[in-house]
Amino acid sequence: MAVVTIVGSGMMGSALAFPARENGHEVRLVGTHLDAEIIDACRAHNRHPKFTRDFPEGIKFYKIEELDAALSGSSLVIGGVSSFGVDWFRDRVLSKIPEGTDVLTVTKGLMDYPDGTLVPYPYIWQRKLDEMQHKLNLCAVGGPCTSYELVARDQTEVCFCGANTDALRRIKAIMHTDYYHISLSNDVAGIESAVALKNAYALAVALTVGINQKSFGLDSELHYNSQAGVFYQAVREMGGLLKLLGAPALENLAVGAGDLYVTVYGGRTRLIGILLGRGLDIDSAEAELRGVTLESLVVAKRVARAVRARAQRGEVSLNNYPLLMHVDDILVRHASVNIPWDDFSFEDIK
Amino acid sequence: MAVVTIVGSGMMGSALAFPARENGHEVRLVGTHLDAEIIDACRAHNRHPKFTRDFPEGIKFYKIEELDAALSGSSLVIGGVSSFGVDWFRDRVLSKIPEGTDVLTVTKGLMDYPDGTLVPYPYIWQRKLDEMQHKLNLCAVGGPCTSYELVARDQTEVCFCGANTDALRRIKAIMHTDYYHISLSNDVAGIESAVALKNAYALAVALTVGINQKSFGLDSELHYNSQAGVFYQAVREMGGLLKLLGAPALENLAVGAGDLYVTVYGGRTRLIGILLGRGLDIDSAEAELRGVTLESLVVAKRVARAVRARAQRGEVSLNNYPLLMHVDDILVRHASVNIPWDDFSFEDIK
Repeated sequence: MAVVTIVGSGMMGSALAFPARENGHEVRLVGTHLDAEIIDACRAHNRHPKFTRDFPEGIKFYKIEELDAALSGSSLVIGGVSSFGVDWFRDRVLSKIPEGTDVLTVTKGLMDYPDGTLVPYPYIWQRKLDEMQHKLNLCAVGGPCTSYELVARDQTEVCFCGANTDALRRIKAIMHTDYYHISLSNDVAGIESAVALKNAYALAVALTVGINQKSFGLDSELHYNSQAGVFYQAVREMGGLLKLLGAPALENLAVGAGDLYVTVYGGRTRLIGILLGRGLDIDSAEAELRGVTLESLVVAKRVARAVRARAQRGEVSLNNYPLLMHVDDILVRHASVNIPWDDFSFEDIK
Repeated sequence: MAVVTIVGSGMMGSALAFPARENGHEVRLVGTHLDAEIIDACRAHNRHPKFTRDFPEGIKFYKIEELDAALSGSSLVIGGVSSFGVDWFRDRVLSKIPEGTDVLTVTKGLMDYPDGTLVPYPYIWQRKLDEMQHKLNLCAVGGPCTSYELVARDQTEVCFCGANTDALRRIKAIMHTDYYHISLSNDVAGIESAVALKNAYALAVALTVGINQKSFGLDSELHYNSQAGVFYQAVREMGGLLKLLGAPALENLAVGAGDLYVTVYGGRTRLIGILLGRGLDIDSAEAELRGVTLESLVVAKRVARAVRARAQRGEVSLNNYPLLMHVDDILVRHASVNIPWDDFSFEDIK
């Protein structure tokens, strides 16, 4: 039996308590400084306020003041913060995790640098660890998984990525269940980039849903030709970007396409895409979703900024990324939605 | 102005009358020997019995007995038969099309040979043409397009493929509209294989919908983790198969993924996948859909048979295609649905 400490009691971190506990491990769920009420609720009802199922019996709940106790004796620490908590996790948590511990982060995202380099969060944390001369085995999870469906024990395929293969195998042994299926990859940049890229593109597919609602009414049936037309272009652009980022393996694109599929249907990215497609500008659309974390917009803008920087240096042609550029124009330049359909047509002529 | 003759008044052939006629061309829609009632209805109401919109004004309708007149002076013939009409079109229509005419077929599918070779329909027709020493410019259309949404002028992205680039450009000039967007490719095997492969995989994604209906009730909300888990594996296997078939271009996989997306949501393949997922065996599921053309099942079985033949010769490992093999077991060997989730997990370890 291992001790698994999850830091961050958001939906995804909390969902991972289920497979870990169901496998018989000791599970400690720690709320961040923003999560005190969630932890109170978990202690009172053994259920996360956003879930419809109780936690398995025996999970221990901690507030952030009790972090040291929660980390004591852990063999696996799961970082369950959103991308807005990346710095906090780096500055306040990493140094407290005992040397040599395996760490799995659910935080999906990339940072961009002015030269167009895109860096996954685990690399940013690794830099800090190197500075501190503090050794942890950083791994990350990507792939199509919504937290509430994981809690419902729906069949789910994900990929754990990290540099340390032994650590990946240990974490898989702890977390794998008959409904939570885990691939392993050393290609951290490939998996993390794939699942980050999908943010811009899921929003793009959802635009067409909003456009059709505007044309045919809010209650009209879903139309699929236009969704599929954007989905096709999204796969093309994601495949091109993964090659550009040095991560051409088919597995990366497949994980990204699966994650794109689930993100088109799940939650907030879809919602803001639909609002934009109906004709709202980005400010109005964001206002409608006030209070909701929109990591997807942050990531989409970073990826587009990086591609533009690389294009300026002649490494890539923006003509190959018309969909990403249009999403960026909508998000950053307040452009109206006007999907450049003809730009998606290619010529594969010998 | 060109003369466009469409042979076969099924939904897809008839839908292509819309962009062609809206571009100002003379359009002649010819029913096959199975379509006499459809042509009567079109003549009476200027509307296809399965569409909710009238045809554009001026389309001319022909019965099969009038085929010669309908073909006279045509610069483009569109083959609008289903895959069950492939032999009929080859034996009864091809020889009547004047030498040098451009031909576009909507028939998606592959034939398989005992050695595991998969051949798209245009190649089979080309063989006949070569025997007859009769020269036509055979092209085919692939990509995500449902006929009824094309009729609704929904934005649609497709790809025309063929060996003759000039013919591809001529046909695109006739058919392209502000809602019907056309890529061009000389990679006939790549595009036709991609859009054929999706049949097995769309059925596979739909299985999970049926499985969830069985678990949570027919009216339960859709679940996406499991759909996305199969979609991810489908993209992996399609990418692998396209490489195996000598068609590794990203464009092919993207067109196939887009077509997979639309097929998961549209029509008959989804329906039979759901029925199988609920627990019906293939005979009962087919009985429920009696009278409905299930080209997808034919194609799925052929692709699986070809892969098995290649595996016997050691060219490919069946372990890389667990999803295709499971679909084949369901369709051919009456296996119960039991998705091999753990087999979808990969190790990308350096």
